[in-house]
Amino acid sequence: MALIGVGYIGGSWALAARERGVVGDCVGYDSDATATAAAVERGVVARAAASVADAVTGADLVMLAAPVGALAAALDATAVAVSPAAVVIDVGSVKAPIMAAATARGLRFVGCHPMAGTEARGVAAADAGLFVDRVCFICAAAGMEAAIVDRVAAAWERVGARAAAIDPAVHDAVLAAVSHLPHVASFALAGTLAGDAEALCQALPSGPANTSLRDTTRIAASSPAVWRDIFLENRASLLPLVERLESWVATMKEAMKDGDAAALEALLAEANRGRRRLVGP
Amino acid sequence: MALIGVGYIGGSWALAARERGVVGDCVGYDSDATATAAAVERGVVARAAASVADAVTGADLVMLAAPVGALAAALDATAVAVSPAAVVIDVGSVKAPIMAAATARGLRFVGCHPMAGTEARGVAAADAGLFVDRVCFICAAAGMEAAIVDRVAAAWERVGARAAAIDPAVHDAVLAAVSHLPHVASFALAGTLAGDAEALCQALPSGPANTSLRDTTRIAASSPAVWRDIFLENRASLLPLVERLESWVATMKEAMKDGDAAALEALLAEANRGRRRLVGP
Repeated sequence: MALIGVGYIGGSWALAARERGVVGDCVGYDSDATATAAAVERGVVARAAASVADAVTGADLVMLAAPVGALAAALDATAVAVSPAAVVIDVGSVKAPIMAAATARGLRFVGCHPMAGTEARGVAAADAGLFVDRVCFICAAAGMEAAIVDRVAAAWERVGARAAAIDPAVHDAVLAAVSHLPHVASFALAGTLAGDAEALCQALPSGPANTSLRDTTRIAASSPAVWRDIFLENRASLLPLVERLESWVATMKEAMKDGDAAALEALLAEANRGRRRLVGP
Repeated sequence: MALIGVGYIGGSWALAARERGVVGDCVGYDSDATATAAAVERGVVARAAASVADAVTGADLVMLAAPVGALAAALDATAVAVSPAAVVIDVGSVKAPIMAAATARGLRFVGCHPMAGTEARGVAAADAGLFVDRVCFICAAAGMEAAIVDRVAAAWERVGARAAAIDPAVHDAVLAAVSHLPHVASFALAGTLAGDAEALCQALPSGPANTSLRDTTRIAASSPAVWRDIFLENRASLLPLVERLESWVATMKEAMKDGDAAALEALLAEANRGRRRLVGP
């Protein structure tokens, strides 16, 4: 197996997949050589490759685990060197663009998205148990053999995930709502408070790390480079939701300005219902 | 002791304070008679009073634990019936208005705010361990005897909280940032998604309850009536922050629209720094 992009998700998969006997030896390539060196040191990959072509040559399975914005280039470099019999998968958070690119290059490609991201980063945080009980979305390209898709789904199940087939466009619309928009809200909240952070810490003897603030800003600790790419790659689905979020904040603001208790309570009750429907009681 | 407002926070205090021997018998009054009945049934209070005046007559300690919007009326009703020797405290999330009102009525008042709110509600959820390791802000009114303020702080310490003296205006400005604004962001996010919630649940076999969505919308399950009051009572401090949040969302939206990867990454990196300064690594 070749792992292109040796970070938190790819590293966790390599550890889990070897531990469960899903793959044998794993070769790693990363544009950041220190990441590959750390992966070799930790035993996440057996060997550091000098290039994508070097890594994928002779591989039966290629996992593209680079940030979403680097996936197209990784796919190009893979396509020119990989065996036609090899299966290529990814773990990106946006699926329609990569599915289209892989199909155009004639790769045997199965798009994957394990819902296992956290604010952790880097191969040092890689965790063989990361995928246990997490959903892994599986997108089959048009014309892909069902047996290959099933084998990829089974591999995810063996590392503990629950594989779920989904259409790429539906995936991107749904993820914009349940994952990408929460990241926008969390980054915006943490950004709003960033300038006052020192003063707030000084005003509070024990620091302001109450649970509300901690939970709502947890994912604002996520990698700026990773989320920049996801936001841009999925902006067709995401932008209308960001506009709605902006307008919700504005409507709440107006109700506060007007001292309109009934309007404000109705908004909060609607948010209550949304939370309950989405996450349960 | 008289407990005015028999809900989650007041009920938890009554349980904890009796368990630790901080108070003896506790009489409860709530405008919602079913809440008082449930409190008697659970043993949270020994007796249900018929009115605020009935509850506070003869009490050494009065805790006002009504929602912030009902505190002024509870204070008025308390002032006309309470013994001049009694100490009155509250547990509200906004401190400057209640401190001014209590001072104007000549009460022996110590403003308290235990940072122990969760999205739970009602006396049924009351929990004697709620205040353990939580900060409880203490606001002394001008002219209050230091010995009384110290006794109130010591009572909070005995139920497990860490008492921290703070100026009421500073309290309200800081809480607007670290608690009230996160609630605005969380309610706005859940509200934005409320209309699509059914469709999202149908599109996802296991439901969309990923951890990002779960954590960022947790406090959007909080009581609309409680938070309507807090937002309105503290709007002088809160509104400028809500305007900044709205503008942060708008700025992120523009960077996405323009495909401006550098601007977007800079915003996310600033949010990263804000999160790290506020909550730690």
